[in-house]
Amino acid sequence: MSLEIDKPAIIINLDQVKRNIQRMAHKARRQEIRFRPHFKTHQSAVIGELFRQEGVTEITVSSVDMALYFAGHGWDDITIAFPANVRQAKTINELARRIHLGLLVESSETVEALSRTLSTPIDVWIEIDDGSHRTGVAWDQPDEVLRVIKTAQGNGLIRVKGLLTHAGRIYHADSPADIMKIYSETVERMNVLRQTLSEQGYILELSVGDTPGCTLAADLGQVDEIRPGNFIFYDAQQMALGVCSAGDIAAVVACPVVAKYPERGEVAIYGGAVHFSKDTVENDDKVVFGLAATMNNQEREPSDPTWLSIVPGGYLTRLSQEHGIVQLPRSVIHDITTGDLLYIIPAHVCLTVSSLGEYYSTRGEFIPTLNKSH
Amino acid sequence: MSLEIDKPAIIINLDQVKRNIQRMAHKARRQEIRFRPHFKTHQSAVIGELFRQEGVTEITVSSVDMALYFAGHGWDDITIAFPANVRQAKTINELARRIHLGLLVESSETVEALSRTLSTPIDVWIEIDDGSHRTGVAWDQPDEVLRVIKTAQGNGLIRVKGLLTHAGRIYHADSPADIMKIYSETVERMNVLRQTLSEQGYILELSVGDTPGCTLAADLGQVDEIRPGNFIFYDAQQMALGVCSAGDIAAVVACPVVAKYPERGEVAIYGGAVHFSKDTVENDDKVVFGLAATMNNQEREPSDPTWLSIVPGGYLTRLSQEHGIVQLPRSVIHDITTGDLLYIIPAHVCLTVSSLGEYYSTRGEFIPTLNKSH
Repeated sequence: MSLEIDKPAIIINLDQVKRNIQRMAHKARRQEIRFRPHFKTHQSAVIGELFRQEGVTEITVSSVDMALYFAGHGWDDITIAFPANVRQAKTINELARRIHLGLLVESSETVEALSRTLSTPIDVWIEIDDGSHRTGVAWDQPDEVLRVIKTAQGNGLIRVKGLLTHAGRIYHADSPADIMKIYSETVERMNVLRQTLSEQGYILELSVGDTPGCTLAADLGQVDEIRPGNFIFYDAQQMALGVCSAGDIAAVVACPVVAKYPERGEVAIYGGAVHFSKDTVENDDKVVFGLAATMNNQEREPSDPTWLSIVPGGYLTRLSQEHGIVQLPRSVIHDITTGDLLYIIPAHVCLTVSSLGEYYSTRGEFIPTLNKSH
Repeated sequence: MSLEIDKPAIIINLDQVKRNIQRMAHKARRQEIRFRPHFKTHQSAVIGELFRQEGVTEITVSSVDMALYFAGHGWDDITIAFPANVRQAKTINELARRIHLGLLVESSETVEALSRTLSTPIDVWIEIDDGSHRTGVAWDQPDEVLRVIKTAQGNGLIRVKGLLTHAGRIYHADSPADIMKIYSETVERMNVLRQTLSEQGYILELSVGDTPGCTLAADLGQVDEIRPGNFIFYDAQQMALGVCSAGDIAAVVACPVVAKYPERGEVAIYGGAVHFSKDTVENDDKVVFGLAATMNNQEREPSDPTWLSIVPGGYLTRLSQEHGIVQLPRSVIHDITTGDLLYIIPAHVCLTVSSLGEYYSTRGEFIPTLNKSH
């Protein structure tokens, strides 16, 4: 690597990123399902281009700011997969004039507030709660869904596109089989709701999407689009769920070692909560912030995805603002010199990318994001 | 407030910030202890000026980047309270040419690596582990400390200034009395070590500093400087420790309500892990990310610090990337309209400031930080 790393930095393997994109794009294409990937994970126009090479033209984001950023980079069909925030109505109207914009609503109250401020046509998806209890109308309350649809249809600028859900509960699954079961159940629940509404004359699309389900389910089911995001990099949470293996991981955080405590079996790294955020993963009955890995510096063949090796017994166990404490076998500590780089697979890569706001490829290319463009 | 808030934003009460600064500055001055506040909490040159008005000329930061930022805003005596990262030697030398710079070291290995790259005089503090087991040489190993000092003195550019510790273990205290006990114990341990080294002819300063100890201890003890940071804003963690009351809190996060679930006793806000980070606080036996509050909009007299009122039973219980789920009494939810702002006292304000990267005063003034200057 030609890159001089002097502080915590995300390193991504672009070959692995491309493989991860291709796999998901091919799966969707084979099943004739629209692939509208979630760009909140990478937040980068550079990475966006890799999706375009796979034929992707429609995307998902999680904020109005992210939609503005990607609209500025040539993306003209964007769904903001977050309950419409009516306080941002002015920016929403500006965006809708430039691109084909999709918003989420889940109550007549929001639709009415949106209606009062809307000046440009938009698509609207009704957000459905598949049982995850974060946001959305409960999937088994078709009357409530109907009420929202009817309110939306009262405004000529709103086109009701379909029903959308995020099966957040899948992240509490205890096995890959359980993930596939929850994914199928969510797709089934959405289809039950769609059928009920169809009988009343409402023809609606279905949008689902989460990395665990979309990765593991061989059959994506009767849906019109999928919106996974995390799969581009994967992370320690996805590994712990059995969704991916170390070979699928495409992002790692390089951190300088600043102190060693062989007697405690620990080293201190420059890499803290402001870099990793503080999401956790359970691994070998420990709740940790990341896993230690070694990076194979030599350029491998793209067909050989073994650029990373997990360090057995290596865990990022504590984080303060800038410090990280990594538990390591003494034999590993013995070979480390203060100033060396230690590589960490983060618990939750989406938050780490958002915190660090930029990354580098293994070849030393700087990759800017929405948050940092240098 | 003249400010139009359309997305998550930190609001600070500058009158309360000034009161918090004055209280700590006066305490240090009365006891003739140097006040070298930690600027990692606010990360803002604008807030820095409020410290200057209280006579502060020496500061603490937690990264080389933060030191560069404040050096660029006229601060010329800065300690980087983080184990010296030798990979940043080039920037460290540049900084040391411009300002009076202090670094932390805790091993001969680091001192030697630093020595090889150093081209400008610096102060060095030996970092001591008071029993918190994050970083530093153990307080009860004077021989090891002596070894580091002697290695440092071998380089004519290094001036060994003193012994420095951060009593991180104080954050696990179970009562204010326990905090005061730990603070005293840490000061005592540092003095035992100083005395041992003094008997061998080494005259060293002592630097301690954490918000709980420095807030609660009436007598700061036999130390030369204190370095608290969080006290400028305080937060829900400090409240839970009994360090401050709601009236001392100077920062709150305003978040738009995007959905309501009266049947679940919850609302969804625009305000997630990328805004709050994911630090937690235990409150009424619940582990939460923040506390709901109402803000008294009317300008109060500076002597009346009741700009915030806690909402009993109001907790930020779940965070995903952009979503927050707030548990609230149904009577409170009844009075909320989608699009209203909800105010959250964050669990750990330092991480929230770092994540959001900017804030506004209650009077609508934009306050930039190191991370965002607009």
